[in-house]
Amino acid sequence: MSQLSVRPYKGTRDFYPEDMRLQRYIFEVWRRVSERFGYEEYNAPLLEMTDLYRAKTGEEIVNEQIYNFTDRGGRDVTIRPEMTPSLARLVAAKQQELRTPLRWYSIPNLWRYERAQHGRLREHWQLNIDLFGTSDVSAEAEVIRIAHAVMQEFGATEHMFTIKLNHRELMSYIFGDYLQLNVDAAHRLSKLLDRKNKMNQDAFKNQIAAILGEKTDQFMALLEVERLRDLPEQLFQSQAAQQLRELARVLHNTGVTNIHFDLTIQRGFDYYTGTVFEVFDTNPDNPRSIFGGGRYDDLLSIFQAKQMPAVGFGMGDVGTMNFLRTHELIPSLSSTTQVYVASLDPAYAEEAEHVANQLRDGDINVAVDTTDQKIGAKIKTADKKNIPRVVIVGAEEAKAGKYTMRELSSGEELTEDIAGLRIILTNDATRRLNI
Amino acid sequence: MSQLSVRPYKGTRDFYPEDMRLQRYIFEVWRRVSERFGYEEYNAPLLEMTDLYRAKTGEEIVNEQIYNFTDRGGRDVTIRPEMTPSLARLVAAKQQELRTPLRWYSIPNLWRYERAQHGRLREHWQLNIDLFGTSDVSAEAEVIRIAHAVMQEFGATEHMFTIKLNHRELMSYIFGDYLQLNVDAAHRLSKLLDRKNKMNQDAFKNQIAAILGEKTDQFMALLEVERLRDLPEQLFQSQAAQQLRELARVLHNTGVTNIHFDLTIQRGFDYYTGTVFEVFDTNPDNPRSIFGGGRYDDLLSIFQAKQMPAVGFGMGDVGTMNFLRTHELIPSLSSTTQVYVASLDPAYAEEAEHVANQLRDGDINVAVDTTDQKIGAKIKTADKKNIPRVVIVGAEEAKAGKYTMRELSSGEELTEDIAGLRIILTNDATRRLNI
Repeated sequence: MSQLSVRPYKGTRDFYPEDMRLQRYIFEVWRRVSERFGYEEYNAPLLEMTDLYRAKTGEEIVNEQIYNFTDRGGRDVTIRPEMTPSLARLVAAKQQELRTPLRWYSIPNLWRYERAQHGRLREHWQLNIDLFGTSDVSAEAEVIRIAHAVMQEFGATEHMFTIKLNHRELMSYIFGDYLQLNVDAAHRLSKLLDRKNKMNQDAFKNQIAAILGEKTDQFMALLEVERLRDLPEQLFQSQAAQQLRELARVLHNTGVTNIHFDLTIQRGFDYYTGTVFEVFDTNPDNPRSIFGGGRYDDLLSIFQAKQMPAVGFGMGDVGTMNFLRTHELIPSLSSTTQVYVASLDPAYAEEAEHVANQLRDGDINVAVDTTDQKIGAKIKTADKKNIPRVVIVGAEEAKAGKYTMRELSSGEELTEDIAGLRIILTNDATRRLNI
Repeated sequence: MSQLSVRPYKGTRDFYPEDMRLQRYIFEVWRRVSERFGYEEYNAPLLEMTDLYRAKTGEEIVNEQIYNFTDRGGRDVTIRPEMTPSLARLVAAKQQELRTPLRWYSIPNLWRYERAQHGRLREHWQLNIDLFGTSDVSAEAEVIRIAHAVMQEFGATEHMFTIKLNHRELMSYIFGDYLQLNVDAAHRLSKLLDRKNKMNQDAFKNQIAAILGEKTDQFMALLEVERLRDLPEQLFQSQAAQQLRELARVLHNTGVTNIHFDLTIQRGFDYYTGTVFEVFDTNPDNPRSIFGGGRYDDLLSIFQAKQMPAVGFGMGDVGTMNFLRTHELIPSLSSTTQVYVASLDPAYAEEAEHVANQLRDGDINVAVDTTDQKIGAKIKTADKKNIPRVVIVGAEEAKAGKYTMRELSSGEELTEDIAGLRIILTNDATRRLNI
C-alpha cells in the first residue's frame, strides 16, 4: 500500500482543539438563542433514501451535488445535503400526535460535492430553525426575529447586516397579473433573476430586454425597490404584498429594523411557497449572503401527509465564521481546561495526581503533567494549549498543603490550599463561557 | 415516483425532542467528565479515504461492514466506522508542533453495515477519549479512571459494572514462552478465545483440547483467573504482567476497585499493542460488554510518522443507554423550554409576545402560544412537550402587569410581575440540568 496521506478528504476540515473552540462557540450561541425562543433540539440519521431529495430539493443539487451510493443491501442512499426533508419526514411520521405549534432546531453536518472554490466546502454544519403549524405572518416574524437575535448574540449590530425579503407568490403575481408573461417567459425571467448578482449588469439588462421588450423599464424599476411602500399600488392587490407589509410592521414593532424588500431574493430550494428571506453582510469588502430561509407550506405532501404550514431557515457555520472574521467579532477563547497541575519532578507525580483529583472533586477541569520534562517546558505546554493557569507541585507544596497558582496571561501568582483554589476556580468566568 | 416512506433508513434512529433529551444528557455527562480530566474536544470529517481503514482497523470491518463508495471525483471514500484512525491522522499531521501529553476527546457518529439484530445499529455515537505521549502505566490508569468516573457520573456504583483487564503482550508470552505454541496454533487459539462467549462451553473446551492437547488443563486454569496474584509465578517474568500489576495498584489507590483480570478480553481492532480493557454490566439479566479500549503505541506508523504512545477508549451511546435503562439510572428530563406563555384569546397575542420577549431579555427560555386554540388545549400542549410551567396572558394580566405562572406538575400557582418571574426562573434548577 502506498503511503497514507495525513490531509483531510478534499473540501473538508479537521477540527483541532483550537478550531473546535470556535465551532463550539458558534454552536453554543445557536443553541442559546434557539432555546431562548422555545425551540427544542432534534436529529435524524445522516443517511436518507435518495428518493427523499428527488422530490423537492432541486435538480441541480440532486443531479450534480449529492453524495449518493448504493448500500450493501442495494438501497440508493444519500448523505444529507440539507436537513429540511428529514425534518418533514419526522413531522409526517407523527403528525397525529405532535401538537402544534412545533418549534424545533438542529445542528446537522451536511454534504455537497462542491467543486474546489474559495469558501465552498463539501462538509459544513448548519443551524436549522423551523416552526410548524402557524399560517399567519407571526410565524415569519418569529423566525426572522430569531435570525436577527442570533446575529445580535454574536455581537453584530443592525448596520453590519441586512435582512432582504421577498415572496414567491408576489413574484407569480408580478410575472402573471402585472407583466402578463406566459409561463415560458416567466420561467426564463425567474432563472435570469437568480443569476443577477453573478452577471455583468449590462448583459443582465440586455437579456431582460430580450424577454420583456417594452416592459423592461417597468420591471427594472421594481428591481430598484427597497421599501415596500415604493412598490406600485397595483401590487398590493396581491395577498403576498399585503403579508409582506404586515410582516414588516410586526418586525419593526419588535425592534427588527434592518429589513428591505428585494425582488431578486429567490432561495435555491423548490419547496418554498411564500415569504423568502436572506441575510446579507453589509460590509462592502464581503457583501455576501450569509444565510436565509422562508415559508414552505406544502412539503409534507411528498409523504401524502396532510398539509402543515412551516417557516424555517438554515444558517451555516462557514458563512457565520466569515461574517465574524470580517467584523472582528470572534472572542478570545481559552481551553475548557481551567488549570494545569505540573509536578516539579517525578518524585511528586503522585502528589500532583492527588491535587488534581481533589480539584476535580470540586468540579474543576484539570489536566495533570507528571512527565519528566522540566517545569519551564510544562508551563510552556500549558500556555500553548491556551490553559490559563498552572499549579506547581513540589516538596514545599506537598509539605505545607498550599499551592501556588500562576495566571499565565498576567504572571500573577497566589498561594492557597485546595479549598481556596476551588473557590477561585469555581468563580472563574472564562469557564462559564466555554463549557 | 412511488410514495416516500416516513421511516428512517434501516438500522438508524430518528431523534424527536424527547429522544434527543436523553442523548443530550449522555453527551453532557461525557463532556463534563472528559473536560474535568483536562481533555479537549476535536473533530474530523465524516468521510475519510478508504485506505485509512485498510491499514489497521481489521479485515472483517473493512470487508463486510464499512460504508464505502466512489465519489464523483473517483476517490474511494468511507463513512467513518471508528474515530481512532482519523485521530491518528490529525496527530501525525501536526506531530512536530503538538506538545505532549495530548488529551483529546470527541463524540462522533460512526457507521457500520450491521445485519438486523437486536441492539446492533448502523449509526451510533461514541465518546472517544485518547491520551497521547505517555508510555508508562499512568496513561492506562488515567484513561481507565475516566471510564470509571463516567460510569459514576451516570450514577452507577462499583457493584453495577466491572472493568476487565488483559494485555496483548501477556497473551503473546503465554502462547509463546508459557505454552510454547507455534504461530499457527497461537493464531487459532486467539481466534477461539475471541469467540468464547458466543459458543457452547463444551464445544469451546473440545476445540481448545484439539489445539493444546495435554496443555489444555494448564490453559483452562488461566481462564479462571480473575486476580492477577493468582496467575502462575512464571508469567511475572513478562513485563506485561508486571505492568498490569502496577496498573492495578495505582487504580486501587485512586479508588477504582472493581477491576479484574480476564484472559479472554481481546478487543476487535488490530492496532492494540499493550493493555486492553473492557467494561461489563454485572447485572445477570444484561451481562453485556458496555465498552472498552486499550494501548496502541504503533498506529502513527501507518503514516510513516514517528511512533507516539497512545491509550484510549470508545464508549457508545447505545450500550450506555441499555446500561442506564437496566439499572434505572435515566433521570427525568424536562424540556429546555422553561415556560410556555399562552394568550387567553387572540386579542392578547401581542401582549403575550411582549411578555415572552421581556422574559427572554432576562435569559429565560420561553415558547409563546398565540394561536386561537382554547387555553385548556394550550396548557395540554405545554404538558405534552414537557414544558414545566405556563404563564397565561389575558385582560387582567395585561392591565395589572402581573402574571400568574402555574407549575404543571404540582398545580401550584404564583403571581408576579416580569422582574419577579425572571428571578424565579433564573434560579430554576431544572434549567441548569438541561442546557
